[in-house]
Amino acid sequence: MQPISDTQQRILDSARELIFSRSYADVGVAAICEHAGVKKGSFYHFFPSKRALTLAVLDTHFGDLKQNFIDKAFADDLPPLARLERFAEFAYQFQKQVMADTGHVLGCPFGNLATELSTQDEPIREKIHRIFAKLQTQIRHVLQDAQHAGELQNLNVAATAQAMLAYFEGVLLLAKNQNDPEVIRALLPAIAQIRITQR
Amino acid sequence: MQPISDTQQRILDSARELIFSRSYADVGVAAICEHAGVKKGSFYHFFPSKRALTLAVLDTHFGDLKQNFIDKAFADDLPPLARLERFAEFAYQFQKQVMADTGHVLGCPFGNLATELSTQDEPIREKIHRIFAKLQTQIRHVLQDAQHAGELQNLNVAATAQAMLAYFEGVLLLAKNQNDPEVIRALLPAIAQIRITQR
Repeated sequence: MQPISDTQQRILDSARELIFSRSYADVGVAAICEHAGVKKGSFYHFFPSKRALTLAVLDTHFGDLKQNFIDKAFADDLPPLARLERFAEFAYQFQKQVMADTGHVLGCPFGNLATELSTQDEPIREKIHRIFAKLQTQIRHVLQDAQHAGELQNLNVAATAQAMLAYFEGVLLLAKNQNDPEVIRALLPAIAQIRITQR
Repeated sequence: MQPISDTQQRILDSARELIFSRSYADVGVAAICEHAGVKKGSFYHFFPSKRALTLAVLDTHFGDLKQNFIDKAFADDLPPLARLERFAEFAYQFQKQVMADTGHVLGCPFGNLATELSTQDEPIREKIHRIFAKLQTQIRHVLQDAQHAGELQNLNVAATAQAMLAYFEGVLLLAKNQNDPEVIRALLPAIAQIRITQR
């Protein structure tokens, strides 16, 4: 991969900020260019379309969240289920900071675009599906660690990891709708208690 | 309230269908008028704006879902927690039918607009918040019935009802993202097992 130029980075950062705080449809290429301080010709030099840019934004956004937030939450210095509670706490702190910065709980950047675009844009739908699959894999490892420690026998690990991700997405959706990060603090720690058992 | 004219009804139906299957931003007044077979002048005779129409659509859509689906799911001919499982089953059947009709799992019409618009449109955000509050009230009644039957003592009923709604929204979000109603069948019955206890 070529190193990312400063202009390309500014376009990525602007698109991430604008789309996360508003929506995909509400943010056009002109608004991204204006925010980034670049000309349209320069935009299209780097990205053939808003969709192509958004696919790149989803990758870099997930990479950043993984490095700064997800990997730390799931690090194995804590017992398995305590890692899920740390993930809940980090999500609360993160959305609280987002609210302080922007005036809004912005929710999950992947869940937001999943609901907006899954019927309308197949490449973006698939990209978000793959990102969700990565998150589920991290949760699955936590549950498997718990099983190796003798806990959670008889659990359907794959279904429970997916259920936990669903709960996470739903809590962030309600917190965004209420514009209140305290919803996350009240509800999300229960993520560690979700169980789908083997039939 | 005045009776709704045939034209007004066609506008409401078209807006519901188009916005539910795409998104708020992607559906303009012109597309709604074309789908409904009405002129723009007629549209603006009934609705001052797309937002005003959408607020009316949210009310009628919730009213229809309540009558045809939610009230039946929560009827007290079943023990309390079995009603939640019936709610999960109905949601699966509903989205499966939507998929058969449209080729897509469309998810929750309220959750979809909550993620798309909560940072952008305060009246729509508030309307969805009130609809979610009504759904939570129905879940709360189920939990209270369970408590009257001697179950679920020590439960934080309000928080659990909200957590169950969050889980419902998250499961529908993942099902939409995977375009697969079987996600609902696999995950949503666990809604009846979510518990947030009193501290």
